[in-house]
Amino acid sequence: MEVQGHFITFEGGEGAGKTTVIELVKERLTSIGHSVLVTREPGGIQIAEKIRQVILDPAHTEMEERTEALLYAAARRQHLIQKVIPALKQNQIVLCDRFIDSSLAYQGYARGIGMEEVYNINQFAIAGCMPALTLFFDIAPEKGLQRIHNNEAREKNRLDLETLSFHEKVYEGYQMLLEQYPKRIQQVNADQSLEEVLEETCNYIISYLNKGGGLR
Amino acid sequence: MEVQGHFITFEGGEGAGKTTVIELVKERLTSIGHSVLVTREPGGIQIAEKIRQVILDPAHTEMEERTEALLYAAARRQHLIQKVIPALKQNQIVLCDRFIDSSLAYQGYARGIGMEEVYNINQFAIAGCMPALTLFFDIAPEKGLQRIHNNEAREKNRLDLETLSFHEKVYEGYQMLLEQYPKRIQQVNADQSLEEVLEETCNYIISYLNKGGGLR
Repeated sequence: MEVQGHFITFEGGEGAGKTTVIELVKERLTSIGHSVLVTREPGGIQIAEKIRQVILDPAHTEMEERTEALLYAAARRQHLIQKVIPALKQNQIVLCDRFIDSSLAYQGYARGIGMEEVYNINQFAIAGCMPALTLFFDIAPEKGLQRIHNNEAREKNRLDLETLSFHEKVYEGYQMLLEQYPKRIQQVNADQSLEEVLEETCNYIISYLNKGGGLR
Repeated sequence: MEVQGHFITFEGGEGAGKTTVIELVKERLTSIGHSVLVTREPGGIQIAEKIRQVILDPAHTEMEERTEALLYAAARRQHLIQKVIPALKQNQIVLCDRFIDSSLAYQGYARGIGMEEVYNINQFAIAGCMPALTLFFDIAPEKGLQRIHNNEAREKNRLDLETLSFHEKVYEGYQMLLEQYPKRIQQVNADQSLEEVLEETCNYIISYLNKGGGLR
């Protein structure tokens, strides 16, 4: 599945500010003439939404962790096929809030399934369509969680309610990914003002685009 | 996931008669003192039922084949964890109508995803809990389909409506599995009277049990 276009993903723990920054990045890139799609799984894709409902249904207390990992991979596949790839084919820049690395850090590492095993089912799902560039929003887990708890407008999800030690494990998982993919994953210091974070993020993206981005 | 107990699966194309025979096998085994569970995915497991609803929803015409394969693997995982393994732990004989080989033959081979790739996501799902014995009900695809079309009581499913050439591919897929797993998979001639098919099936199972079955 070789596609042109620029597939960029945003990763990080809870409260790292990805979701806020991604919209500002879109504005910036659009203002300099790029066509940009911002998305996140399940991204309004009906089948992926239905899968997500199964994952999040509070009645499903017996959901086993590998079942959950397979469901995330299924939703990822459908979102990729129906939304991301068509946009890449139209040469849009796709900014995706979380992708494969979230599954590796959260389910593979923090939940203890194993990063390699989760990687393998995700490779089945994405069939080589890896992001060209990934921005890891780096903030200490306790700071990220503090931000969330201070943000009353934000709807709390299941992950927000996990213990600090779980989020510390997620952070460790991301650190391992940074070591494993030093070219693809760039680290943004998310413990700065919004302006600074936006600047750093845009610098990485524009430098990537200036180098020609390229085929995957 | 090493479990005691006897996990036996039934495989074959449409109209091979598995579903009828499996109930008679249960009666036979129960009559000689065994405790037997007959099941099939999703097996009344709420999460697996919900996943199956997503797979089968007629509105989901855009369901991509790898999404479908991941969903089947997810439903398999949950059914295995909640129903099959608890029964095996109680030392029951579990007779399961279709399991991993169906995914390999139907999706891996006939749909063209690739048997090895579908095998890998299923290994993630079952984590080593392979059947000890698999009975392949062998009947020529056109004969199996004829049986289905003559059986008005049977509710037609999506697979029954596939072309003959699809079912021939499924058959080819099973032939490859027979070659690959000559010890685990035994071939039952399903083109005989019900009594003969039952006899042949029970002979395989009883011979397996007499050899001690064994740990997996």
